Amino acid sequence: MFQHLFNPSVQHTLDLIGIFVFAISGSLLAVRKNFDVFGIAVLAEITALGGGLLRDIIIGAVPPAAFTDLGYFTTPLVAALLVFFLHPEVERIQVGVNVFDAAGLGLFCVTGTVKAYDYGLGLTASAALGLATAVGGGVLRDVLANEVPSLLRWDRDLYAVPAMVGATMVVLCIRYDALTPLTSGLAVVTAFVLRLFAMRYHWRAPRAWHRRSTVREEESS
Amino acid sequence: MFQHLFNPSVQHTLDLIGIFVFAISGSLLAVRKNFDVFGIAVLAEITALGGGLLRDIIIGAVPPAAFTDLGYFTTPLVAALLVFFLHPEVERIQVGVNVFDAAGLGLFCVTGTVKAYDYGLGLTASAALGLATAVGGGVLRDVLANEVPSLLRWDRDLYAVPAMVGATMVVLCIRYDALTPLTSGLAVVTAFVLRLFAMRYHWRAPRAWHRRSTVREEESS
Amino acid sequence: MFQHLFNPSVQHTLDLIGIFVFAISGSLLAVRKNFDVFGIAVLAEITALGGGLLRDIIIGAVPPAAFTDLGYFTTPLVAALLVFFLHPEVERIQVGVNVFDAAGLGLFCVTGTVKAYDYGLGLTASAALGLATAVGGGVLRDVLANEVPSLLRWDRDLYAVPAMVGATMVVLCIRYDALTPLTSGLAVVTAFVLRLFAMRYHWRAPRAWHRRSTVREEESS
Repeated sequence: MFQHLFNPSVQHTLDLIGIFVFAISGSLLAVRKNFDVFGIAVLAEITALGGGLLRDIIIGAVPPAAFTDLGYFTTPLVAALLVFFLHPEVERIQVGVNVFDAAGLGLFCVTGTVKAYDYGLGLTASAALGLATAVGGGVLRDVLANEVPSLLRWDRDLYAVPAMVGATMVVLCIRYDALTPLTSGLAVVTAFVLRLFAMRYHWRAPRAWHRRSTVREEESS
Repeated sequence: MFQHLFNPSVQHTLDLIGIFVFAISGSLLAVRKNFDVFGIAVLAEITALGGGLLRDIIIGAVPPAAFTDLGYFTTPLVAALLVFFLHPEVERIQVGVNVFDAAGLGLFCVTGTVKAYDYGLGLTASAALGLATAVGGGVLRDVLANEVPSLLRWDRDLYAVPAMVGATMVVLCIRYDALTPLTSGLAVVTAFVLRLFAMRYHWRAPRAWHRRSTVREEESS
Repeated sequence: MFQHLFNPSVQHTLDLIGIFVFAISGSLLAVRKNFDVFGIAVLAEITALGGGLLRDIIIGAVPPAAFTDLGYFTTPLVAALLVFFLHPEVERIQVGVNVFDAAGLGLFCVTGTVKAYDYGLGLTASAALGLATAVGGGVLRDVLANEVPSLLRWDRDLYAVPAMVGATMVVLCIRYDALTPLTSGLAVVTAFVLRLFAMRYHWRAPRAWHRRSTVREEESS
């Protein structure tokens, strides 16, 4: 019932923007890894749609939205082409890309949580799937590029926490019957702003206490 | 309705051949990575069945064919045993293996597209899933072996493009009501021959324009 | 019908123990890889729940148990916190952890096989899914940590074989109408003890015959 929290066409436009910026991040990594044009397109598709794909398979919403909405499928290809031809320019505006990526993170953690709840999952599970929707594409991107997922690394600015906060706000709103376009918009903005602050002030999460000094430091750099 | 495009027993035999050659490629990589006999069997199974498994999970055809047809399951084990005992001989006929692998690629991109369409997906999504069926197993193989998927690397001969052409031919035939055993056979042969040409003449796809010279070249070699 | 082979609350407690020890193994690898506290939690969740998640998605049991049982979800977080604060102590009792991990392996290969059979899969496919349940989480753990799955490496003590034996015993019992709490308990114990022996006496599986000497040995060390 919450499926269309916002006006459907507004929601769809926001989704496409989120997909586009995630696809840009996948394409940029593909260029850095020296992939060819098809490798760039594949990584763009998987980064942009992977999180939602995982969520839809887990909640049983098959075929997943990624395969039923042509706009979802073609948007990453546009991003891949753009990076293919203009990647030095795109890299130069990396800060701008990061801001949009933060917006995608905020949006997807909220819509992912709502969709999971609509399919009958509990509150905690819905929040976990909202988080998976937001960060899953980036993890698949890094696995395919044969890198340690930047989500897991201690030397990266907080990424999961803003999405967790957004997803938690949504399930609290659902719990107390207060989920409206306004409150869910607030959750999107909170996750978005938290991620911006995390990038600006390089917020990081702690590693395990008493980490042995014998660990190979170079692996984390 | 298109499910059995060819005579069912012909189709099944072709499927088993495709599964067998994909399993050979997985087994050979496992030997090169120094895996033990069980690692060889696991990689053979996943290379051979992974693409169809992904497709079936995405279109909601569960349990997937890989788990309902005993022949699909045992064929990769035969391939793994063969490579385990005879891998120098199998490596020596690598060219022959590559020809069969190209045949598997052509076959699976066509049957994958048809099956996805039968499950109600749109034309573009069906073609995308046909491609995923054909190349998905190889990507899972490389991810499990902790290598950059050869599908994505610029220094490998074209692999995705022949499958894309085959899948596109199928959806065009469906669109214009012209999908017959003859036309789909033609799509298989086209993808197969394109892949043979790509290997023979080392066709490659371009990397991003104006790639920065600072990129680490050794990563791509 | 076999779903609750043991008393439901006994079964649930055993499941939670298995999930807990698998989560410990994921957390320890995360600490060794220098992940932050959220990376430790993510790897704990995926190691503990990944195998069952794969099985449930393949047999069509969605949403998977991992997302419907709050205990399944929170147990790995407890394990992650424990390792986060006490990992030198946990590493010191590594032998104890390994014994519990062997118990989890034995338990999950049996319950995974039974659940797959309950969802209508054939005997061979059920055994294969039982094996996947038991070892799948560890494979996902290693893939996310960007390492060659220890399941596949020849220089690790046998891990898949004990699970295969346990799963095979279960399907033989089903085939001959002899699946009781006693016989399935026996299958659990057999897999458990075999794994203990494999660790104690460093049982290993052979690599391919006539392996070429040119293979890079350092990759396997």
